[in-house]
Amino acid sequence: MTKTNIGLVGLGTMGSALTLNIAEKGYPIAVTTRLASRTDEFLEKARKELGDAADKITGCGDSAEELVKALSTPRTIIFMVPAGQIVDDLIEQYKPLLAPGDTLVDAGNANFHNTRRRGEEMAASGMHFIGMGVSGGEDGARHGPSIMVGGDPESYAHVREMVEAISAKFEGAPCAEHLGPDGAGHFVKTVHNGIEYADMQLIAEVYGLLRDGEGKSVSEIGALFEGWSNGPLNSYLVEITAKVLAAIDSKTGDPAVDVILDRAGQKGTGRWTVIEALQLGQSASTIEAAVGARSWSSDIEARKTGTELLGGDIKDGTTLSEPILESALLVSRILAYAQGFQILSAASDKYDWNVDMARVAEIWRAGCIIRSALLDDISAAFRADLAHGNLLFAPAFAVRLENGVKALRALVASAVLRGIPVPAFSAALAWFDTMRQARGTTNLVQAQRDFFGAHGFERLDAEGAHHGPWWD
Amino acid sequence: MTKTNIGLVGLGTMGSALTLNIAEKGYPIAVTTRLASRTDEFLEKARKELGDAADKITGCGDSAEELVKALSTPRTIIFMVPAGQIVDDLIEQYKPLLAPGDTLVDAGNANFHNTRRRGEEMAASGMHFIGMGVSGGEDGARHGPSIMVGGDPESYAHVREMVEAISAKFEGAPCAEHLGPDGAGHFVKTVHNGIEYADMQLIAEVYGLLRDGEGKSVSEIGALFEGWSNGPLNSYLVEITAKVLAAIDSKTGDPAVDVILDRAGQKGTGRWTVIEALQLGQSASTIEAAVGARSWSSDIEARKTGTELLGGDIKDGTTLSEPILESALLVSRILAYAQGFQILSAASDKYDWNVDMARVAEIWRAGCIIRSALLDDISAAFRADLAHGNLLFAPAFAVRLENGVKALRALVASAVLRGIPVPAFSAALAWFDTMRQARGTTNLVQAQRDFFGAHGFERLDAEGAHHGPWWD
Repeated sequence: MTKTNIGLVGLGTMGSALTLNIAEKGYPIAVTTRLASRTDEFLEKARKELGDAADKITGCGDSAEELVKALSTPRTIIFMVPAGQIVDDLIEQYKPLLAPGDTLVDAGNANFHNTRRRGEEMAASGMHFIGMGVSGGEDGARHGPSIMVGGDPESYAHVREMVEAISAKFEGAPCAEHLGPDGAGHFVKTVHNGIEYADMQLIAEVYGLLRDGEGKSVSEIGALFEGWSNGPLNSYLVEITAKVLAAIDSKTGDPAVDVILDRAGQKGTGRWTVIEALQLGQSASTIEAAVGARSWSSDIEARKTGTELLGGDIKDGTTLSEPILESALLVSRILAYAQGFQILSAASDKYDWNVDMARVAEIWRAGCIIRSALLDDISAAFRADLAHGNLLFAPAFAVRLENGVKALRALVASAVLRGIPVPAFSAALAWFDTMRQARGTTNLVQAQRDFFGAHGFERLDAEGAHHGPWWD
Repeated sequence: MTKTNIGLVGLGTMGSALTLNIAEKGYPIAVTTRLASRTDEFLEKARKELGDAADKITGCGDSAEELVKALSTPRTIIFMVPAGQIVDDLIEQYKPLLAPGDTLVDAGNANFHNTRRRGEEMAASGMHFIGMGVSGGEDGARHGPSIMVGGDPESYAHVREMVEAISAKFEGAPCAEHLGPDGAGHFVKTVHNGIEYADMQLIAEVYGLLRDGEGKSVSEIGALFEGWSNGPLNSYLVEITAKVLAAIDSKTGDPAVDVILDRAGQKGTGRWTVIEALQLGQSASTIEAAVGARSWSSDIEARKTGTELLGGDIKDGTTLSEPILESALLVSRILAYAQGFQILSAASDKYDWNVDMARVAEIWRAGCIIRSALLDDISAAFRADLAHGNLLFAPAFAVRLENGVKALRALVASAVLRGIPVPAFSAALAWFDTMRQARGTTNLVQAQRDFFGAHGFERLDAEGAHHGPWWD
């Protein structure tokens, strides 16, 4: 048994993968989980997969006490468990066993408000807390995820070398970064997932347009995404879209997507992004559209009634060419990233995190679900002088926006005339068009509010609060 | 001095108006506010406005003790103060002065979660709490608001007669109702305001299309709304839109809306509706679009940059006729109400409120900001057997939906091709089109989630959770 200062609790899909990754990179680690038998099974699996490198792993059954005893101080214990109450329960269980200077790491998808609270509670006992977002799914955790760290920089220093070693590499550089204090890491991960929701929904809308609008077969659509994944849309999500569309269900011989029920689950991070945006006085409308689409997908019976009462194809003769779809998807992806970064900026300001947006884009270039060819340009845009911190105004995107938005207009117009739902494309375009209006229309809203509620308004030609002539 | 069992705290715009209304209807009431001088000023104003009926009002300066002493038991004390901490502070101040059986009423726009908590705290001391939503602005409060009550029905019984007397009347029937326990009244009021946000935004988008797309003058647009207010769009908001568009600024001689800055404020209820919808696994996307539009309106400097870098008119030759605009606005208003009622249903189920949706529609028919000719049909639809409790499926709306949605498609297509932002219209249509798709596109989302996260999916042809062939 190798003495170590790193422990891990929770040997589910992600915890197991992360442990194998850590051991494989040569870092000794002690592990435990809810059932001692699971720990034993995991050790057997590790032996098969890693060979001698599995010696780095010390199994501690289901015992917190044993895990803590296996660690030298200052200890760092990583929790890889589902978000919520279970994290608080674990903290309560481990805290009495630890000493000042020790660190607990929550590597799950926590709501950053909880991370902030937990960090304060730990600090009150002289201990540290790190909220660490880990993206890349099981494969990422096993072979190199993108890692977004928030919390005390001194306690991060104890594990930084290990975290960078297990992280994904982009051109040799680790995709792991300490992004700010307390909840910064978990918030960046939340927004990452929000952008992921939007991107997946945009892809699903393209799939719907091709399937229901252009009458393409699943394999034709898959081939299209396959081709796109070698162009400007190059990204993990487009790549796997090609793969899942090419997959055949062994039971029926049909394309796999054709046997899957269209009811999408969600685990909260998309929703949290939208809620935090609203709390910050912002709107993550493209992400909201994706969250909404997942919610409505659950109403299968209502949608069946909808088809009976309101359904039916609407022929209008328009079609959408493949370059238009490609270009509209690219520009909408840019808009989704841009909204995500706006939310991140607003949160960073509010919570004094001082998040380096360029670094965020850089550590998303490998390992994570939203990695894409765009992120190089995004990080460069943030390193340059970006007007209002808004990617819409990045010179590097000017040409893509100009051409892409034309395509996006054509896509939305065609879809709405044919009755094909495009909530995320519509939301992206509505934001774009709002942000290019120096003179909007909420002057009318202000007039109405003053009329019925005496709320007052600002004038274009004078300071202060004013009321309309309807009050004279 | 007339002994009474009704007190009121907070003589701002709404509290003053409500007190005058109560006294005018013959109910004695004792009042206090933060400054004794304000109470005196109010009494003077009441004397001028009500004459002898002002005798019904007992001024208690700035003294909580005096107010409580002026009341016979069981006492009912109405707080009409801004939402938030001040309500908790007042409860803390008044609770020691009250006796079991007494009732506090929060008549402001509280977040219903706070109302639930406050009710529990009061109940623990044997006292009652009522959360009462009051809509109609100052004029409504003075001459007849729509009143949405939640809380203990027994304590409401003490004031029911008075509340119904001061409320708006629709064909003689009071627009006031006890809608359920604890936070039900405040939640209904929150959703009311959410629908109000959506309706105002839809109207602002029509104004934008006419101004920037069709080149109409303010007075022409005002005349159009004036005409519409006598047709199926008949409603308070369309009526006041005509009035504010007709109003001339005395300083410049220009139309009043032309001197108003396009930066809209918000006080939280629209945002709350969207957040609660998300928490309930729903999406109030049309309301979200309105909240988003107000948020973005604050980014004036960014929008100026947007105009420079991304702006400019886009000519495409399409125009929108007035009947199309009218019809699209009507159908989108139906969709906004429908989403609002969906959120209300979901909350009523979750919190066991058993809210009578038909009654909600009925008490919104007069006094409140979203009163409209549609509400009769909406209440009738809920009294009949409404599929999935969704107004989209109400037979009474079938013809309006069919024609209206055609117009809505034309409106959105034309707007997006011309670069005129229509976030709320787009969101309404995207929801409609999603709900008429028995087979959506989230099967692809589920495939992607299973591919990268092993989340599993449901099959069309078998029970249980499954994984894709990519895991074989």
